[in-house]
Order: sequence, then C-alpha cells, then structure tokens
Amino acid sequence: MTVDMQTIGKRAKIAARQLQQFDSTAKNQVLLAIADELNHQREAILSANTLDLEEGQKNGLTTALLDRLSLQKQLDGVIQGVCDVVNLPDPVGMEFDQKTLPNGLQVRKRRVPIGVIGVIYEARPNVTVDVIALTLKTSNAVILRGGSETLRSNIALVNVVRVALEKHGFPIDAVQMIEDTDRKYVYELLRLSNFVDMIIPRGGNSLHTFCRENSTIPVITGGIGICHLYVDETADLETALAIVHNAKTQRPSVCNALDTLLVQETIAAKFVPMVVKRLTEDKVRFKVDEQATHYTNGAANVELAGAGDWDIEWLDLILGIRVVPHLDAAIEHIQSHGTAHSDGILTQDLASMERFLNEVDSAAVYVNASTRFTDGGQLGLGAEIAISTQKLHARGPMGLEELTTYKWLIVGQGHVRP
Amino acid sequence: MTVDMQTIGKRAKIAARQLQQFDSTAKNQVLLAIADELNHQREAILSANTLDLEEGQKNGLTTALLDRLSLQKQLDGVIQGVCDVVNLPDPVGMEFDQKTLPNGLQVRKRRVPIGVIGVIYEARPNVTVDVIALTLKTSNAVILRGGSETLRSNIALVNVVRVALEKHGFPIDAVQMIEDTDRKYVYELLRLSNFVDMIIPRGGNSLHTFCRENSTIPVITGGIGICHLYVDETADLETALAIVHNAKTQRPSVCNALDTLLVQETIAAKFVPMVVKRLTEDKVRFKVDEQATHYTNGAANVELAGAGDWDIEWLDLILGIRVVPHLDAAIEHIQSHGTAHSDGILTQDLASMERFLNEVDSAAVYVNASTRFTDGGQLGLGAEIAISTQKLHARGPMGLEELTTYKWLIVGQGHVRP
Repeated sequence: MTVDMQTIGKRAKIAARQLQQFDSTAKNQVLLAIADELNHQREAILSANTLDLEEGQKNGLTTALLDRLSLQKQLDGVIQGVCDVVNLPDPVGMEFDQKTLPNGLQVRKRRVPIGVIGVIYEARPNVTVDVIALTLKTSNAVILRGGSETLRSNIALVNVVRVALEKHGFPIDAVQMIEDTDRKYVYELLRLSNFVDMIIPRGGNSLHTFCRENSTIPVITGGIGICHLYVDETADLETALAIVHNAKTQRPSVCNALDTLLVQETIAAKFVPMVVKRLTEDKVRFKVDEQATHYTNGAANVELAGAGDWDIEWLDLILGIRVVPHLDAAIEHIQSHGTAHSDGILTQDLASMERFLNEVDSAAVYVNASTRFTDGGQLGLGAEIAISTQKLHARGPMGLEELTTYKWLIVGQGHVRP
Repeated sequence: MTVDMQTIGKRAKIAARQLQQFDSTAKNQVLLAIADELNHQREAILSANTLDLEEGQKNGLTTALLDRLSLQKQLDGVIQGVCDVVNLPDPVGMEFDQKTLPNGLQVRKRRVPIGVIGVIYEARPNVTVDVIALTLKTSNAVILRGGSETLRSNIALVNVVRVALEKHGFPIDAVQMIEDTDRKYVYELLRLSNFVDMIIPRGGNSLHTFCRENSTIPVITGGIGICHLYVDETADLETALAIVHNAKTQRPSVCNALDTLLVQETIAAKFVPMVVKRLTEDKVRFKVDEQATHYTNGAANVELAGAGDWDIEWLDLILGIRVVPHLDAAIEHIQSHGTAHSDGILTQDLASMERFLNEVDSAAVYVNASTRFTDGGQLGLGAEIAISTQKLHARGPMGLEELTTYKWLIVGQGHVRP
C-alpha cells in the first residue's frame, strides 16, 4: 500500500474548514453517535484487536505490553471517555479580552480551532479514540499515526468513527489515519506545513527528538519526566514517606512517576532507611549516592548510582536517592538533571516552600503532594491530549482549551490609522 | 572573528536564571538606566551608525533603505520607547486559574519568563533596543542577530546596554549579540535547543522559511501579510474609499498594508473608478482582474494581473483589484491567497459582518476599519515584539504577555493519588 501524504493533508485542511459550521450541540451529538457506534461494532473492534495481540505474542511482546495493547477490558472505558468529553465545556467560540479603544475601535479575541493536528503515538489503542474525541470537540481535523503493534485495532476504531461521522453529515476526513507504519510517513507528515498546524508526539524521547529535528510544523514536546521530590528536615516524615511511596509505586511506568528522591542530610540517617524499608515491600530497587549507602545497610536491592543515573527517566520500580546539604543543592540538582516536568518539595517551612515554588521552573511545581497529579483529569481539565514540557503555547497538561488558538476581531465605524 | 554559539547559549541560560531574582521595580530601574546611558552615549552610537550609513551608500543601498537604517532622527524615539516599556504592567508573577480541587489540592498558574529568546532580524537598528527592552521587562535573556547593514550600530547599542546592566548588578549576558553576520551562525542558533526556548524571526519570507526548515527550537512565524479588504454593495463607498486609501498608502512597506481589494460586482462600475482615481493621486499602481479592466479606462498605471499576482505581498504602492460576485467568492479568495494576517470586510450588512468574522480565520479579522491597526501599539498592547501568523502560542500582535509562559503551582497537605 502506498500512502499519499499530500492528499491526506489537503483533505484534512478541507475537512477542518467544514468542521467550522457545526456548533457545540452538533459536535456533542456526533460524539454520542461515535460512542454508540463503537458499542455496536464491539465485535469487529475486538476481533481486530485479537489479531494484533496474536501477532504481538508471536513477536515476543511482554505480557505487560500485551496487556496495555488489549482492548478487551479497556473498550468500555474508551467508550465512556467519549461520553465524558461530551460533558466538558466547548472552548470554541468563547470570547475574551474585550475592549473598546480610545478611538472607538472595538477589539476582542475569540477562541477558534487550531485547524489540522497531527498526532504521532505508540502502542495503546485507547489513545486513538481519546484523541479523536478531543479534536472533534474542538472542531479540529486530525491525522493519526499510531504504532504498528495495534495497526489493525486502530484501523477498526477509525473506520467505526468515520461511519458515525458520515451518518451525521460530518466530513469523514476530519479523522484520518496513516495506515502504513513505515517511519518515512512520519517524516512526510512533519513536513506538511502547508496543511498541518500542530504536531503532538506521544511517546519516548527518541520520537520527540525525531519530531523536533525534522518538523517544519510547530511540535508540542513533552511527556518525558525525570521527576524529583526534595524532603527537608522540617517535613513530617510519615507524610513524606506516604507521598514518596505514592509517587514512585502508584504507576511507575508513567512520566509523572518519581525518579529521584533528594533528602536533606540532617534527616538522611532517619528517612533513607524508612524509604528503603517501605518501598522494598513493593519491589522497588534503589540507585543511591555514596552518602546514602551509609543508611541502606548493604541491602541487596540497593546499588551505588552511576554518574548518568540522575539523567534517566526510570519508568520502572527503580528510585534514585541522593543526599543533599540544603535547599540550594536540591534546586541545583533539579535544574541540572530535571526535564521541567513535575518536581516537588516536602516541607513544613513556609520560606522553603516559597523559594521552591519561585525558583524551580518546571511545568508543575509541587508542595507536599505526589507528582502523580500532573494529569489533565487530576488537575480538573476533564481530559488531556498531552503533557507539554516545552514553554510555548501550553505547559503541563493540555486539555480542550490548549487545542484552540484565537483570532482578533476588530470592528470599526470607518476607522483609519492616523 | 569566530563566534562560539555554545558559549553564547550557555551564558544566556545562566543569565536567564539570574534574571529571576529581580522584581518589577529593579527591572524598571535598569530600563531607565539603559535609556539614560543611551542618551549619554549618543555620540558614540551615532558615529557607529554614520559608518554603517557610509558603507551602505558605497554598497548602493537606496535612499529609502538608508533612511530606515539611520538613527540620527530615530534615536530619541528609540530612547522614549524604552521609557514607555517601563510604564507597561509587568506580566511576570501574575497568577491565574486559581482553584481548590474537591480533594483539597490548591492549584494555580503563575506567569513566568520563557527563558532564552533568539531574535533574528534585518536592518533597522531600532529593533535592537525595542527587543532588549521587551525581553528584559519580562525577565528573559535574549540573543540578538541583526543584519549586516547596521552591525556597527547594533554593536554600539548593545555595548551601551550591557554597561547599564553591569552598573545595576544585572547579568550582562542577559543581552548578547552575535557579532558576525555569517548566516552559518543563524543556523547554529536555530539548533541550540539545549539553551534557547523560542526563536523570533523578523524579516522576509525567506528568513521565516529558513527558520521553520532548520530550527529545532519553536519558531514564531509571522510578519508576512497578504492583506485583503472586501467591499460589498451595502458599504458606504466614501467611507470604504477612505479605508482602502489608508490601508494601502499610509505605510505601504509594512506587513499590514493592503495588498488586494475585492469588490462586489454590483458596485464595481462605481467603486473601482473611485479607487483608481483617489489612489492614483498617491502614485499607486494597480494589478486588476479582467472584469475590473472594464472600469479603469485603460489608465497607464493599471495592468492586468497575472495568475501569481494574488499571492504577492507587495510592500509597495501596488494594489491588486479583483471583482467578485458575492461574499462566498471573497472568502474563498482570501482562504486561497491570504496569509491569515489581516483581512477585512467593508459593509453595512450585519449578516455579512457576522459571516466574515466567523469564516475568515486570520490573526486579525476586521469590519469597517483599516488593516493598518494590526500592531501591538494600536491594539492596546503598549508595545510589540512581533506579529504571529501561526497558530501556536500567540496569534497576531505579541506584547509582553506573549513573552511569558506559565507554570502550575500545586500545593497539598500530604496528597497522594488514589
């Protein structure tokens, strides 16, 4: 099969324009129709998914990965997710910054869709439907490029969606998928700047780097989180332990999980053993600096950290521990080794809280809470298309509003510039 | 001379961090000191500028261009511009979207500097100081790369600024200039993604394309405006004529000047001759479609437009005129040939106004006003660093707020994710 990316781009741009004519009610109706259609086509979707899983098994994918790819248990949640998006407020058309200038010119800004969004992601087929729901809700056309492991599942899901779109008079090219996972089409997508307005990569570091290096379209970089918690001597250690435990073990495979624990040296002798004991129960292994080794009693799951270990996003049950003399050293470590994703301080000292909030320049900066809250759903956005760790357009969790831009509307009565 | 871009990048990043410790008062003081120092060093600056102008003359630059490069008359305005920025509100530190989530987690966003900004511009030395004032006011470090025609002027200006920074305890590397105009350093700047957070090109189409094609850093594309006005049959023609005249002739060399006039055919026989007559007085030449030629009586300054002429940003006293049957055709023309910069409708019909505001997706969409208002100063931003015609981060005129990003501040009392 050959894929003509120019045609896909052109169709997406036309569809994006056609989408402008549908109001929130119409968009919500089509989303409910999509949920319905997914429910009715459950068998077709699951049998495509079964084929993907069988091939994955043949190719030696781990059980954990196969679990993530499976829609058997996930499909109900996926369908519910579409219905949840229906209930979110539609940012498109909202007006703000209204003003009348001294010369009488009336100026305001109106939220409008971005246009065409390219989303490049790996593995999980639930992302396919999540992204479709969020982009349709904001009147954006989307070009999807999913991973090869779930190609059949994705094709089945997208076909079901396009049927629902067509039945409701929506442009079917509002949702297109690149049905060939050859990486050359990713490259071609990144160069479609005539048609595509924004690229969202969702995947590992190498995908983000590839997009940044090759795209002529603005890219939302993100999703890589080397996350830190600094525990100072004023912290309530039982509370701190519960937070560290949660941040590391509640879901170790995700970007907002804890990677490195920084402990003030005055409490290291007490707190490091507490952490090792508690987290060992959850099978965590530790990479610790030399000073911390004094407090770990040569436990089998503790080893000395190498110099490069502070720069690794573990995505696993591994925790780095480093003993630092004071807040400045903690901030310095975070500035040197962090990815500006999610970093926090556990303290009872107000001045330290303030300094940490001021001086740590991460997308999400925490006081006395687990880093696991960096998530659109958790922070009240209702849904999330990505977590941005770059500084333009949006930072941190991106919800519906971050899938829009604005235009200036300027109304005069014959105004000319003097 | 060799330029070490890695060192420039590293120094800028360090300076950007140091800038965080200065509050609005300190920043305003240093801006006033810069204005003062520019005033005191007037002679050194103007003599460097004279050398640039002499070389420009030798190299055969036009009088018009030399005029733009000259600081003799402009320097007072440049200094005043710095003082004007002092009086603008500082967006850094502003907090918004405060909320307490049902679980008690306190969430808010705080405006913070973007970090390090690279600005690549051509010719005019006043841009050097404008950019410095805006970036310092927002606590950003800047790396400047100006045009070769005013290299000596720019070096003189930047040196004066750095002296003022040093006297006030500010990091001098908050303002750096690439003192070699070899284009290879532009390329190197565009690849400094470890140090630079945003690139703002200010120049022609080829500069913007070069940046988009080669940058690994987010680029604010903009400044290219193929601008349209559509005059329909309900418009007050005298008012429309004044607006068309203003949009085309008030400053033809800039991006928000009118390029193509679209006239509804029912009034073409009356309005086209009015336009040609009035604008001919200002030496405007016309490129018109075949239908319009019927109303121009073979005037010497009117020629038939070629197919490509609708896609040219004239930046000169040239106006395209095209006769269209109705609003749909006008919108279709703007969608096909526009650059989504500034486009307007001149009409008395409310339904047409609404449709135009809804369906034309440009950074600035006008009703009954000149396109010349697309300008940070004119639209109440106080100052402007660029005009964005892309859709991410900022759209249209960019002022101080658009030189900031935000971070999420999340304060808990031992919160863990269930």
